[in-house]
Amino acid sequence: MRELLAPRSIALIGASADASRLTARPQRYLRRHGFGGALHLVHRRASEINGEATRPDIPEGVEFAYVLLGTDHVEAQVAEAARKGAKLCCILADGFAEAGPEGEERQRRVVEAAHTGGMRVLGPNSMGVVNLQDRIACTVNAALEAESLLPGRVALVSQSGSMMGAILSRGAARGLGFSHLIGTGNEADLSAGEIAGMLVDDPGVDAVMLFLEAIRAPEAFAEAAAKAHARGKPIIAFKLGRSEYGAELAASHTGALAGSDAAVDAFFRAHGILRATTLEGFLELPSLAIGQRAVVRPAAVSVLTTTGGGGAMAVDALGVAGVEARAPDAAASEALSAVGMRAGARLLDMTLAGTKPDRIRAAIEALDRDAETAVIVPVIGSSAQFRPADAVAGITAAEARKPVAAFLVPQADASLRLLAEAGIAGFRTPESLADALRAFLSWRAPHPVAAEVPALSLPAEPDEADAREALAALGLESDWARFETEPAAGLRYPVALKILSPDLAHKTEVGGVALGILDEAALRREMAAMRERVRVAAPDARLRGFLAQPMARPLAEAILGYRHSPEVGSIVMLGAGGILAELNRDVSLRLAPVDEETAHAMIAEVRALRVVQGFRNLPRGDTDALARAIVALSRLALVPEVAEAEVNPLMIHESGLTVADAWVIRR
Amino acid sequence: MRELLAPRSIALIGASADASRLTARPQRYLRRHGFGGALHLVHRRASEINGEATRPDIPEGVEFAYVLLGTDHVEAQVAEAARKGAKLCCILADGFAEAGPEGEERQRRVVEAAHTGGMRVLGPNSMGVVNLQDRIACTVNAALEAESLLPGRVALVSQSGSMMGAILSRGAARGLGFSHLIGTGNEADLSAGEIAGMLVDDPGVDAVMLFLEAIRAPEAFAEAAAKAHARGKPIIAFKLGRSEYGAELAASHTGALAGSDAAVDAFFRAHGILRATTLEGFLELPSLAIGQRAVVRPAAVSVLTTTGGGGAMAVDALGVAGVEARAPDAAASEALSAVGMRAGARLLDMTLAGTKPDRIRAAIEALDRDAETAVIVPVIGSSAQFRPADAVAGITAAEARKPVAAFLVPQADASLRLLAEAGIAGFRTPESLADALRAFLSWRAPHPVAAEVPALSLPAEPDEADAREALAALGLESDWARFETEPAAGLRYPVALKILSPDLAHKTEVGGVALGILDEAALRREMAAMRERVRVAAPDARLRGFLAQPMARPLAEAILGYRHSPEVGSIVMLGAGGILAELNRDVSLRLAPVDEETAHAMIAEVRALRVVQGFRNLPRGDTDALARAIVALSRLALVPEVAEAEVNPLMIHESGLTVADAWVIRR
Repeated sequence: MRELLAPRSIALIGASADASRLTARPQRYLRRHGFGGALHLVHRRASEINGEATRPDIPEGVEFAYVLLGTDHVEAQVAEAARKGAKLCCILADGFAEAGPEGEERQRRVVEAAHTGGMRVLGPNSMGVVNLQDRIACTVNAALEAESLLPGRVALVSQSGSMMGAILSRGAARGLGFSHLIGTGNEADLSAGEIAGMLVDDPGVDAVMLFLEAIRAPEAFAEAAAKAHARGKPIIAFKLGRSEYGAELAASHTGALAGSDAAVDAFFRAHGILRATTLEGFLELPSLAIGQRAVVRPAAVSVLTTTGGGGAMAVDALGVAGVEARAPDAAASEALSAVGMRAGARLLDMTLAGTKPDRIRAAIEALDRDAETAVIVPVIGSSAQFRPADAVAGITAAEARKPVAAFLVPQADASLRLLAEAGIAGFRTPESLADALRAFLSWRAPHPVAAEVPALSLPAEPDEADAREALAALGLESDWARFETEPAAGLRYPVALKILSPDLAHKTEVGGVALGILDEAALRREMAAMRERVRVAAPDARLRGFLAQPMARPLAEAILGYRHSPEVGSIVMLGAGGILAELNRDVSLRLAPVDEETAHAMIAEVRALRVVQGFRNLPRGDTDALARAIVALSRLALVPEVAEAEVNPLMIHESGLTVADAWVIRR
Repeated sequence: MRELLAPRSIALIGASADASRLTARPQRYLRRHGFGGALHLVHRRASEINGEATRPDIPEGVEFAYVLLGTDHVEAQVAEAARKGAKLCCILADGFAEAGPEGEERQRRVVEAAHTGGMRVLGPNSMGVVNLQDRIACTVNAALEAESLLPGRVALVSQSGSMMGAILSRGAARGLGFSHLIGTGNEADLSAGEIAGMLVDDPGVDAVMLFLEAIRAPEAFAEAAAKAHARGKPIIAFKLGRSEYGAELAASHTGALAGSDAAVDAFFRAHGILRATTLEGFLELPSLAIGQRAVVRPAAVSVLTTTGGGGAMAVDALGVAGVEARAPDAAASEALSAVGMRAGARLLDMTLAGTKPDRIRAAIEALDRDAETAVIVPVIGSSAQFRPADAVAGITAAEARKPVAAFLVPQADASLRLLAEAGIAGFRTPESLADALRAFLSWRAPHPVAAEVPALSLPAEPDEADAREALAALGLESDWARFETEPAAGLRYPVALKILSPDLAHKTEVGGVALGILDEAALRREMAAMRERVRVAAPDARLRGFLAQPMARPLAEAILGYRHSPEVGSIVMLGAGGILAELNRDVSLRLAPVDEETAHAMIAEVRALRVVQGFRNLPRGDTDALARAIVALSRLALVPEVAEAEVNPLMIHESGLTVADAWVIRR
């Protein structure tokens, strides 16, 4: 959509002549930074603004209409822009969906008016669009006050307008130039995901950065991400919402255990979107990832240093982030020996070997031979401060197949800029280095899973037996029987007996569960007693009979859950069972559906499930069956009518699994 | 020790005339930065260096001798300096304790030679001493190449020489000036702790920063920290070693569960030393803590912002670090109303109220009225970039009782310097803001616990019964009996029976444990059978009879451990019992001894123990008894002959505890 990214004609509706006002800025910035297209100042009363003639109405066929008026005037102007054939309308005002039901309704009407005329909407609450390659600064963001801007090949889409400016200024200070900066605000129509997809198509863009407060339109992100991987362009996100105050003592069900941020992580991971968790890491990830592919990499990196303390600090911070700094393998060691160097454990200290550019270059090229290293990390000390050209020369000259990420230990702005000019990631802090490398090493291409639509039919109000039948249809079988008055034949005693009712979420509390029933006679007695107990405790519950299953003693218990979240889509969750697991939030999440390989990765991520994976010589559980169960439940992603499902506990045996309890909730 | 911090005469032993050499730097830097004392260049052959006359030997009575010669020449020069009455000798060379047994022996001899002459040693492997207030740059650190330096009132002690320079340069870039920078290297004699103590005494020093790779001489740190609190001067540490590769699957005993870094955390906490975990947080903590006291503060802060996205980013990062951004209380809300402002949940967004200095000032002063807030956090957007004086004016003018910590969202170097000049902490990243506030809010004054020396006597090779007797002497009683051939009278059946031997750490594996013995007849049978089993399985083990205790069913199990670590001193550890707790590293540590208040705080920190503290309406356990047990075990800190002790599991009941197993190890 060229009219969004590079409009040739712009109408500013409600531009102000008062330079101190926000609405005076777009005209000033467009002129200051050299807009070469047609600029129309639309104003009802003034005949000129800053020496430029105005016009009273929106011109026919303008590409980009920026409505700078207050909330109450937006609707009429949007309708007029649409009538005049504008392709895109950007709205500055707030007071829409974020302002309660009335605002939501107003926002809906605005989008409707736009779409009627075939026009798209950016905002409301949008700070506008900046295209530095084409010198288009159509924004109210104060960062454009700068006299000159550094154009580049990285695009930024930001839901927060003010962060556009902060990131622009921080990028400029370290030599990171931008192609576009786009503020999406409320995303009533155009979403960050859709715009990311357009930017990925732009030949002037090498990477897309996303500053997000929420994920809207997850399919648009998915589409953009798939395209980005096909074109070899990284998408890098910084998303707020990592902390939650309210959810400390989580309820036991999938939703709370999962936590929305863990679901967001699963979403980014599934789509191969790199997620930074530090602001500095966010700013350097483009340099690190551009030109690289999202492939499976070793989880380790190689660190060389011209400063012992700085190198140790980098290794330590990497370790905290789960990135191992490794000693060189035989091939790299041999290459080091050939140039008279020897690495110690986890660190190649160059202070003895010499720190001149040719030595740094030789060290990088030698470490690059290590088959088990993913990234070469030069850590540079005082030379970065006093001799930037020297400090950087060895790094930029090195011919390495692996990417290089440098950490500069002193204040070293000039060296950071030289690195940026050479397209090499240069970090100011060990924590941002570690954050970016963690994100980079776990970067994987989207991996769509082909799964057949399961043939399952759910009643309107499913009970536990219905849930178990649905699980069986998905491929997760367990031994159980449903009956009304006569015990099922062929039960393997001892059994557990439960009441069946769509109205009883907590059967135990109404006496609806009995364990360890030894034979059929006892079962009959217990059926009568249970029916009576439940009638007294829950007189209004509709009873549909009983469910019995053989008693089982597991090696361990898990919780397996499914949830459809409007924010990120379908999620499958595996956690350890029991109350401790809940306290420890010991869970693994993925977008659903998943394949068995991913399911095995999930099992490996749940710490408590190590007890069935050979920990301390404990008996091993049937993790293959568990992986198949995860795959089975994850296929609910193909069943739109299911909102949530859970098996809890799912008992893990040396051979096979037992579904000890299960439920599903329809949408 | 004035001769260390502000020497009036310096001898450079082995200064070089070759400007490219490291050893040429001290002379150059001392002259460049205006050393006003007597400088002696000691050189065997050259008669002058850079136009200054040399002398062939160390002059009598020089205060500070800096030995710049290679490892092999150090010993002789140190001996000579001591003979000539030097007060302090600083050694640049490496090849000492860090280089294996021979180097250790060399280091020992050097210190001995120095002490014989009453001289102290800094290093080996020391980059020297810089005193910016007195213009003394006696160092080889390249950061001193800078033409001018910013003197200040913050001292840095660094075990890494190269980090001295990195921190100096980073400080200078943000307006943080230093009083002293001291490289301690190997700390063969003078330790970072001892030097910190001297710096705390210096009237020119307001705060001491420590860059540490290891903790040596913990008592010196303790002494310095106590003095620092008495004088109201913060000590701030950045210590490496937060990550560990090797200890992922920890063994079950206290040592491994504790982990050395957790013990280091406990050490800093006990002594009221602020620990930063980010490099940027480290650099800003002095500004935040100077002038403040280490008192119990609320765990929440108040955030105001001129940029929505930036403010939300700060609140989120604070939350990740466990610091709550809170909505104002009634008093603060009223004060805000009085100036026409209203805060939303967790954030006061000033974009509507106006962001002029007087508005910022009014907002800070209003939020300052909140009784439950610890720090006021202004988040400043684009004005920090384009109008630094304006952006900072409201913050510096505010008269708040609470400390203020600012976060500047765009690149805003000038604003950061203005804040530093005003002594206000200014952060570049949300993560460093969060790190520093986390450290600041948990800052407590050292809290020495008076504990009586317990009267306990341990045999040379204690068995479980000896361990239980020691626990009883400490105040942790449990019901058990020891006997040899005849069952003890008055046992409460059913009981557990165990073999007693100083040689059997793992009794179960040799058949030395039997559970659920119902009466005395069964006990006699089991005694005979057990004796036979153990004789076969462990023929060489010395058997000392049996131990019996009543069977118990706990609400939960804990592990309670004690360890004396040479690095940080005595540690008491509480963890959840069982294998899951181990996988989750769910433990709380403190320096021992502790009092009951601290013991209760430890109980609250172990997530799994929430199950006995009212979680999900589960029955409450006897946490008072558990707290007393922690206090009891922690008194081992007063028993020098004990190296380690552990109760595992310690069973927690509704009333009382059961020691289910215990051991002690002598030093």
